[in-house]
Amino acid sequence: MSKGLNMSRRIRRTPYTNKVEAAGVRGFSVVNHMLLPKAFQRSIEEDYWHLREHVQIWDVSCQRQVQVYGPDAAKLVQLMTPRNISKANSGDCLYIPIIDDQAGLINDPVLLKLADDKFWLSVADSDVILYAKGLAIGRNLQVGVSEPDVSPLAVQGPKAEDLLVEIFGEKVRSIEFFKYGWFDFNGSRQLIARSGYSRQGGFEIYLRGSRLGPLLWDTIWEAGKAHNISPGCPNLIERIEGGLLSYGNEMTRENNPLELGLQKYTSLDSSVDYIGREALEKIALRGPDRLIHGVLIDGPSGAICTTPWPIFFEGEQIGQITSGVFSPRLNKYVGLSLIERGYWRVGLPVEVVFDTGERRSGSLSSLPFD
Amino acid sequence: MSKGLNMSRRIRRTPYTNKVEAAGVRGFSVVNHMLLPKAFQRSIEEDYWHLREHVQIWDVSCQRQVQVYGPDAAKLVQLMTPRNISKANSGDCLYIPIIDDQAGLINDPVLLKLADDKFWLSVADSDVILYAKGLAIGRNLQVGVSEPDVSPLAVQGPKAEDLLVEIFGEKVRSIEFFKYGWFDFNGSRQLIARSGYSRQGGFEIYLRGSRLGPLLWDTIWEAGKAHNISPGCPNLIERIEGGLLSYGNEMTRENNPLELGLQKYTSLDSSVDYIGREALEKIALRGPDRLIHGVLIDGPSGAICTTPWPIFFEGEQIGQITSGVFSPRLNKYVGLSLIERGYWRVGLPVEVVFDTGERRSGSLSSLPFD
Repeated sequence: MSKGLNMSRRIRRTPYTNKVEAAGVRGFSVVNHMLLPKAFQRSIEEDYWHLREHVQIWDVSCQRQVQVYGPDAAKLVQLMTPRNISKANSGDCLYIPIIDDQAGLINDPVLLKLADDKFWLSVADSDVILYAKGLAIGRNLQVGVSEPDVSPLAVQGPKAEDLLVEIFGEKVRSIEFFKYGWFDFNGSRQLIARSGYSRQGGFEIYLRGSRLGPLLWDTIWEAGKAHNISPGCPNLIERIEGGLLSYGNEMTRENNPLELGLQKYTSLDSSVDYIGREALEKIALRGPDRLIHGVLIDGPSGAICTTPWPIFFEGEQIGQITSGVFSPRLNKYVGLSLIERGYWRVGLPVEVVFDTGERRSGSLSSLPFD
Repeated sequence: MSKGLNMSRRIRRTPYTNKVEAAGVRGFSVVNHMLLPKAFQRSIEEDYWHLREHVQIWDVSCQRQVQVYGPDAAKLVQLMTPRNISKANSGDCLYIPIIDDQAGLINDPVLLKLADDKFWLSVADSDVILYAKGLAIGRNLQVGVSEPDVSPLAVQGPKAEDLLVEIFGEKVRSIEFFKYGWFDFNGSRQLIARSGYSRQGGFEIYLRGSRLGPLLWDTIWEAGKAHNISPGCPNLIERIEGGLLSYGNEMTRENNPLELGLQKYTSLDSSVDYIGREALEKIALRGPDRLIHGVLIDGPSGAICTTPWPIFFEGEQIGQITSGVFSPRLNKYVGLSLIERGYWRVGLPVEVVFDTGERRSGSLSSLPFD
């Protein structure tokens, strides 16, 4: 299924792309008009085991920052998300669904509060900057919306903390989960958060200044050798096992946060002023029509899920797997799917049809997978 | 430079992707979160000559439609573009730059007026739907903004008209350039425009209904055999020679329409109410700082332009080539570049540095290339 990716300036390179190529990248995806490495020399299974035991360096520059800055910054950010951001402090990272007036999901970024009047939205694959600009202009808000020169580099895996301590000092250990701190790097001040798109622990360095990219990569790489570091990328097996959602895969504008199990990030408190509130209240009242579940499918390994795989219960389609892959640890396929109401029972026996036409038996699971 | 493209649901397939794969596609790009075929079996040079002499079928479904519908539809569309759309009629296609409040380019779609209260924006690579939604919500406009199930298929080249006449009848000949008409296809009503991303003539069929995709492809393919039809895609050589701009390559949010030579699509008439007008007036008053030019570079053929190539005049950088390729017809490289003010002279001798480090001599040219 893999084909060539034809390059142009439109598919933006990152400050780390030269390093990633030197490290032997085999495949990319495109996120936010930018290259995201997706495969290196080893198989996805080998990378999975490595990520669980050691440490990896990931070029996630495609997590572009939408900077919202000015007197109305907090107001604009709150307008975009049903999550109550009023109690956030500087130093906090918040996972915030962004919705439109129909409560359809537009993105699911991590919000970094830099100051009372300054925020970064670290976005998944859609042009949130255009939504923010449209709203700001339309409402005549006193705010600037821009994409600063910030290129996140993730250091993920159980050895990430020890590695970063060697470079940035013991203070790294004091960063709590989904918090960030400021650290010196080569005379510059850099933001490091304890976060990342895996469940193995780790950090994201929100590098300010593209010119520092190669030096940051090399510094981590050199110090990492003693920790068995490897170039890597978000690992599909680990992500699905961990129940981490992917915008564009598990959710699109057709979906609302309640279907995705994101109710804890939605406030129905009347003091919180956001777009899509009325639509969300209606959905909350009647309950969502679909709900995210895990699906376990019997082996053996083989097919790759590039188009959704339909899921049947007693001959009736009850959902589709939007991300699916074989887990060598569980010796089964693991998949993520929105399941129709009436079928929300862990253990429900189902049948899944691969895009090869092959039918496999399986069952619904809770998330994350154990 | 070509690497693998890793597939997922997020990189959307089109109604024609199965056909494109069967036709031997070798490489894709990603536009609007969707696959755009970029290479088939033959070389770019062979495809170039074929496009100039025969007819090709292109899957350009990634030209997504942003539908704007309702009492305030015309108002919203006008807010987004400096081009005066008030005199457009149903049946018209208009090339419209879309800008933000700083006059930065957000996209450069073709606007199709379907009715006084209904428009499609056939967009290049950015989520215009989010900008439109933001503005509509922010201004509280009475309008719906959506992405309908429309998948454009382009038929390009000098034999395109004769081919489509065989399928849709003689009425095809009466479609004027940048106009459209409605045609029957398998019991459905379909929009066909005389337009497309080449200078060789041709049409775009804005297919409504994904399920009809394979049938439409097959119907054109079968009838096309007598016309020496080939699967194809926008051809980089032909596009650059023709001076056709590409959003994300020649222009980004950092650029304004006047730099791109799009002044004929910008109105400074005070009766036209659009965002970015004040910024654009200021730029018009002092004149743009950069201006789009062609660049001719001496051969031989070799390097591929995936990162901008800097352009020097007497040792000073005066621009960069954002799209460049070797033209077998002109026996030189052709490139597109924004050139700094003070150097806008056709024939100016320049030096270009490829990303391989090789230096080549060249000269500035007018557009399109002859």
